[in-house]
Amino acid sequence: MSAVRVLERCDELARLSEESGMITRWYGSRSLVEAADLVAGWMEEAGLAVRRDAVGNVIGRRGDGGGTFVLASHIDTVRDAGRYDGPLGVLLGIEAADAVGGEPGFALEVVAFADEEGGRFPLTYLGSRGWAGDLTSDDAELQNGLGERLGDAARAMGGNPDAIGTRSAPADLLGYLEVHIEQGPVLQDQDLPIGIVTAIAAQSRGIADFRGMAGHAGNTPMRLRRDALAGAAELVLEVERTARATDGLTATVGWIGNEPNVGNVIPGHTWVTYDVRHQDDATRDRARDELENAARTIAERRGLELDWRRRDDLPSVPMSPRLRALLTEAAPGTIELGSGAGHDAVTAARLTTEAAMLFVRCKDGISHNPAESVREDDVGVALDVVVRFLGLLDADPVLLSARKRE
Amino acid sequence: MSAVRVLERCDELARLSEESGMITRWYGSRSLVEAADLVAGWMEEAGLAVRRDAVGNVIGRRGDGGGTFVLASHIDTVRDAGRYDGPLGVLLGIEAADAVGGEPGFALEVVAFADEEGGRFPLTYLGSRGWAGDLTSDDAELQNGLGERLGDAARAMGGNPDAIGTRSAPADLLGYLEVHIEQGPVLQDQDLPIGIVTAIAAQSRGIADFRGMAGHAGNTPMRLRRDALAGAAELVLEVERTARATDGLTATVGWIGNEPNVGNVIPGHTWVTYDVRHQDDATRDRARDELENAARTIAERRGLELDWRRRDDLPSVPMSPRLRALLTEAAPGTIELGSGAGHDAVTAARLTTEAAMLFVRCKDGISHNPAESVREDDVGVALDVVVRFLGLLDADPVLLSARKRE
Repeated sequence: MSAVRVLERCDELARLSEESGMITRWYGSRSLVEAADLVAGWMEEAGLAVRRDAVGNVIGRRGDGGGTFVLASHIDTVRDAGRYDGPLGVLLGIEAADAVGGEPGFALEVVAFADEEGGRFPLTYLGSRGWAGDLTSDDAELQNGLGERLGDAARAMGGNPDAIGTRSAPADLLGYLEVHIEQGPVLQDQDLPIGIVTAIAAQSRGIADFRGMAGHAGNTPMRLRRDALAGAAELVLEVERTARATDGLTATVGWIGNEPNVGNVIPGHTWVTYDVRHQDDATRDRARDELENAARTIAERRGLELDWRRRDDLPSVPMSPRLRALLTEAAPGTIELGSGAGHDAVTAARLTTEAAMLFVRCKDGISHNPAESVREDDVGVALDVVVRFLGLLDADPVLLSARKRE
Repeated sequence: MSAVRVLERCDELARLSEESGMITRWYGSRSLVEAADLVAGWMEEAGLAVRRDAVGNVIGRRGDGGGTFVLASHIDTVRDAGRYDGPLGVLLGIEAADAVGGEPGFALEVVAFADEEGGRFPLTYLGSRGWAGDLTSDDAELQNGLGERLGDAARAMGGNPDAIGTRSAPADLLGYLEVHIEQGPVLQDQDLPIGIVTAIAAQSRGIADFRGMAGHAGNTPMRLRRDALAGAAELVLEVERTARATDGLTATVGWIGNEPNVGNVIPGHTWVTYDVRHQDDATRDRARDELENAARTIAERRGLELDWRRRDDLPSVPMSPRLRALLTEAAPGTIELGSGAGHDAVTAARLTTEAAMLFVRCKDGISHNPAESVREDDVGVALDVVVRFLGLLDADPVLLSARKRE
């Protein structure tokens, strides 16, 4: 059992990328296919039997009967990513499965989800949604802006487009644990290696799409313009202002599209994403609605058309009190904290009330960035805790009441 | 001599595009190569001897001795363009050359510049600069963001990358006339078909490049962010505010780049173009400097790095008083007006004091847009005026004093 090996494998995956000089692994890309193959090999080394599901998730299993407990995270990345967001949980899961061997009286599955970030198709948690049976066969036809089909990407990942919509999560699911870097500064501030997640924040995401009128940058008087980019710029600042004015709220415009996007043409069409999060559903709702009203006011004043498209409005997702208690028992004195970020545990929590997450401190709270960094001793602590947790779980009478020992 | 034919040929060129459903012809693209071949064929039909220069401009010539007068415009377009910005001047030039035949006592050249808009390489007036000998052989190595080489595009256009830097404009240049749509609303407001250009506005263009810190949109508290897009959004609005506050000034952000440009990542790097124009050099300078100061203030307040890159600072370019007088003689009662847009005439004016432009009314002042529209009778008026102008030029003792009749 070795934290060093976990980190070495994170480094090895980091060498697989669609773009040189950075880490970028999108669903269905060659680099992610190679990453999945590497992970499958490591699972086999750890004595797990490996299969792929319909969307190309890699699933390693040991044991049968007694229910199935799942350790999971994802192996895709955002563009220009760090090396720990996702892979750390998968590789630590493999290491823990190797360490406990056939000891637990339940089956153990380690899952490497093929897409959590949604960097290629407009669908987050693609991997865990597929695993949970939360997609339909229609989703295989989903296309992105480049005309790429989701089903083709699934096939490239070793999946089966025809079976998208079929759940691969075990029917006898006992529970789910995801280890992940914190992606925030709280643990570093408190000088702690790990933290137990209380709940995943409510999230709203969508697109504000402004249409104005393109025109010549030199000969169109200012008073006659309907500049879509200027309208979008106002909204970007309003998103920031709203979040700053509300305690605990984060709100972000991460993505902007602009047409025709030429220096000497007034933009006729500009669209931006919004991303609004808070631990409280109602506060999140209020902020999102305020932003929609602001966008409508901006559009009206500027003579722009606005298409406000709500894409996701995900409620706050509480983590299992019982698993949190077991994690605390495995690591006395560990703090609990909320997650502003979404994780595959959100999807898992739809299948089972027994979903949990363990956060590992990351340097300066930085993630989704090449500067993402974790400490070897922190990973060692997390690994010990997961192994102890699996032992405690094996002895827990309530959680395992339904299991049938062979 | 037919305005109808000029418009039909504009339609024919409009069918050549890199993108279906819109008009987009970039330097070196297949559609522009096809457009150049069509234009060359029409020049030959009009009795002109056709050649290509090093950057792929198409030059049709009739006559020799007695100096050379040039009628020119460009055949490339912006993205999702109209069909008259550029082609109208070229095709009207061919029509006028056909109409006057061998009559003038000077040689006539019609030039179709291969790139004026700068849509593919970060270089405006590429065609006329090559024609004027204003490029160097190093420019063949210029690459765009996609890694495409200018020299390769020149070769695709039938040019010769090794000769870039060699002037193709005639040594005995008598003068230059460019017919172009107005790209503004003045002629329509005054219900006039054409106008004579007094001067081309001073232009400044460049890039404001903001660097902050990428991070997770959910777990990075607002107070710890260094959001490059939010900084750029402030500048976009400041550009608009500055222009609205200054009579006759236009200022535009037409282009924006954002990285990593993913919905759940705080933008770490955002860069925007600026485009500032005024008939008066000093007013333009002052506005540009104000924007630079505003950008520095924004960057400092937000903890962003700013790279302010001035790319072009082009002075106001007066048109030839003598040619303007001849145009007025050819079309009594025609008004004069400034041009907020840059044109190839700017480059021509570096070779000769005798450069002029004639504007044709366009519907609602719209250009760089599929809605670009001209009236057949207006084109007929412009064609008549150019033919009369060439006749007057032939008789002008001052302009042609240097010419040697055969």
